[in-house]
Amino acid sequence: MRPPRPRGTRDLLPEEAVKYSYVIGKVRQVFELFGFDEAQTPALELLSVLKAKCGEEVERQIFKVEGGELGLRFDLTVGLARMVASNPTLPKPFKRYFISKAWRHEEPQSGRLREFWQADADVVGVSSPQADAEVLAAAVECLKRLGLEGFVVKVNSRKVLDAIAKLCGVPASKSLEAFRAIDKVDKVGLRGVEEELRSRGLGEQAGKLLEAISLKGPILKLLDEAREAVGGEKLGLEGLEELGALAKLAEHYGYADKLLLDLSLARGLDYYTGTVFEVVVQGEGGKLGSVAGGGRYDGLIELLGGPPTPATGVSLGLDRLVEVLKRAGKLPSLRTATRVFVAAASDDVRGEALKVAMKLRAEGVPCEVDLMSRRLDRQLKYADAKGIPFALIVGRRELEEGTYRLRDMAKGEERVVDWDRLLSMVAGRGVSGGASSGG
Amino acid sequence: MRPPRPRGTRDLLPEEAVKYSYVIGKVRQVFELFGFDEAQTPALELLSVLKAKCGEEVERQIFKVEGGELGLRFDLTVGLARMVASNPTLPKPFKRYFISKAWRHEEPQSGRLREFWQADADVVGVSSPQADAEVLAAAVECLKRLGLEGFVVKVNSRKVLDAIAKLCGVPASKSLEAFRAIDKVDKVGLRGVEEELRSRGLGEQAGKLLEAISLKGPILKLLDEAREAVGGEKLGLEGLEELGALAKLAEHYGYADKLLLDLSLARGLDYYTGTVFEVVVQGEGGKLGSVAGGGRYDGLIELLGGPPTPATGVSLGLDRLVEVLKRAGKLPSLRTATRVFVAAASDDVRGEALKVAMKLRAEGVPCEVDLMSRRLDRQLKYADAKGIPFALIVGRRELEEGTYRLRDMAKGEERVVDWDRLLSMVAGRGVSGGASSGG
Repeated sequence: MRPPRPRGTRDLLPEEAVKYSYVIGKVRQVFELFGFDEAQTPALELLSVLKAKCGEEVERQIFKVEGGELGLRFDLTVGLARMVASNPTLPKPFKRYFISKAWRHEEPQSGRLREFWQADADVVGVSSPQADAEVLAAAVECLKRLGLEGFVVKVNSRKVLDAIAKLCGVPASKSLEAFRAIDKVDKVGLRGVEEELRSRGLGEQAGKLLEAISLKGPILKLLDEAREAVGGEKLGLEGLEELGALAKLAEHYGYADKLLLDLSLARGLDYYTGTVFEVVVQGEGGKLGSVAGGGRYDGLIELLGGPPTPATGVSLGLDRLVEVLKRAGKLPSLRTATRVFVAAASDDVRGEALKVAMKLRAEGVPCEVDLMSRRLDRQLKYADAKGIPFALIVGRRELEEGTYRLRDMAKGEERVVDWDRLLSMVAGRGVSGGASSGG
Repeated sequence: MRPPRPRGTRDLLPEEAVKYSYVIGKVRQVFELFGFDEAQTPALELLSVLKAKCGEEVERQIFKVEGGELGLRFDLTVGLARMVASNPTLPKPFKRYFISKAWRHEEPQSGRLREFWQADADVVGVSSPQADAEVLAAAVECLKRLGLEGFVVKVNSRKVLDAIAKLCGVPASKSLEAFRAIDKVDKVGLRGVEEELRSRGLGEQAGKLLEAISLKGPILKLLDEAREAVGGEKLGLEGLEELGALAKLAEHYGYADKLLLDLSLARGLDYYTGTVFEVVVQGEGGKLGSVAGGGRYDGLIELLGGPPTPATGVSLGLDRLVEVLKRAGKLPSLRTATRVFVAAASDDVRGEALKVAMKLRAEGVPCEVDLMSRRLDRQLKYADAKGIPFALIVGRRELEEGTYRLRDMAKGEERVVDWDRLLSMVAGRGVSGGASSGG
């Protein structure tokens, strides 16, 4: 018996985990630079909270726990809204970040993970586009610091989509269904969306709807055309005004060149109420995929029992992001945070080797020491297999001389140095906590 | 409707989350210094894997998911064992750490969390006490770096307990039940353990058993007495030899003074096979509680389909640890990682204030900028409520002069400085990633 993992879950072996640690460290650092405070909510929530406004598709994907009273969160937003609803005296704006996992029971053929990493930054309590501009600025900065440049930020507004749906004759009761169908355009194509609309009794409206949402391009240039598309409908104009303001603010932040109005962008969750966005990375051969998304959810906190509270947020999909960075060659080649393997040249110096390791640790140098009483050659082979950059070979002679024999594992070179030189040679920046790596 | 959280779960608001971030950063740093590599396993595991060797009590506490095929992990050890079983070619020793959550359906009256944080360090592939000494050394170093000194490391061995149980006439089929009963001695007292033993048909053996396990004290001094307690039984002597070796190694590492043999220590999980340990912090008024535990589980990886593989590990209970640190006054007083609130003195300088904030962020200074078009006094009040240490007040005059007006929020003092002076004044070390805080 070799027990498998649950379908759609992953183990991260060290070589992979170190990449996640690097990415999470960078994201955490950027979120903190932007003044977001970490706040955590549980993985388990009441099913009634999870179901409040996610929409039928995501609702079907919730992992139910304990006979259906509880569920695993499907994103990090609903828990935040519930927390804010329960703590109405939190100073506003409440800017929080949270980097953790969420769960969705995706179909096996979708190829998507059922347990996945998300990194969210939200601004609660601000209705103006300043908040949307800020969370997007943080997301853009994350990607830039990770070395990605070729990406676009697609934006749209549920208000605009509402107006278009109305103009196209979609009944208000069916508009969320229509948005969920539109949201799949990248996956299933125009034809697929049309079919889904038809299956939901919106066949008549489909053609008009699909034409109206085909508008794409730089926001400030397209605003007039978009105003026509919403036919002067008040809510739609409001949405466009907000998108225009966002574009102006993006200039201050320095990412206006990344913004793209895309009226076909809908986002799959029912809780969105205004501006929505998605960050898509483009590779050499075209699109590498969506690595972040989000938008405004002004009604959710009130729906969960809090006072009326505007809110907006962005969510980075870390699994996809790590994948994209890998393909773009932007991840450090580091395989371990350990810098030095302290090897004992013979059995009689094992105690001394341990003491040297403890001295290195006291100096902040991550190191490993042999725990298996192996011969020197086996110790070095292990250090090499693990990708540890240096081996410090502790022998009787070096101990007597007070010197240190350091082997550069990649180059295969050995040098005999003193303690200070040793420390400067093995110094490297860790991969955790946002520091960049030496790889 | 104000939706509650599931019972036994917690929200960590920023003031609390920043404490966790500080503790997790320190623990992560120590684990990496000791050469442990991070590796992650999913929260969801097959129920059959979770149940393999946890014992009836923990089995009842598993949160079942998806109609009982899956469950949420109750600790971080079983997932590690499953991962190693599935990856038999991992270089050994495999030293991994993992800091994440686990779930147990505790009784409401227990006061324990149902969703809780653990930080584990394990050595897989080493049967000698060197591995136990290493994981304990890492745990001890974590506590020391967090400022705790008054703690003891209780150790015992399942082999010793096996021998004692045999001597006392406990049938082999009942020994695990006896150990689980004994493990509760701190919670229910000797009388309580005796009752539980009686209820499990071990009433006759209870008296003898309780007397035998009453031995407590420094290992090296008690070894002879302990040898008598196991009555020359081979397995028991082996366990004592391992504990003796551990005590000698602890001298090299420098924590021998913390070690205490306690024959009543059993640990509640069925997968332990040899040395077990628990770290108990003592406060001024006595014991503050157990903050770490662990031991050897040499059979678990094979049971889960891998090759026979010895393994040992320690697990820090982070929720308890944060609680203990709080009561001991050892947590930084910092309430946010944000260093500066960039305030606009008037509406016409809001764009400039944002640019200054972006400049500070580029220099690595976490800062927040007003997103709500508030008046200056409201901006400062908010910065104060959030516990942000500095406010940078951007006004027309300072912009013209190229100077910066910095307010120390705690002291209420303002100074006009240049850019370099500003940077050095607001510099503070973040709370994430193991850096110590300024509090």
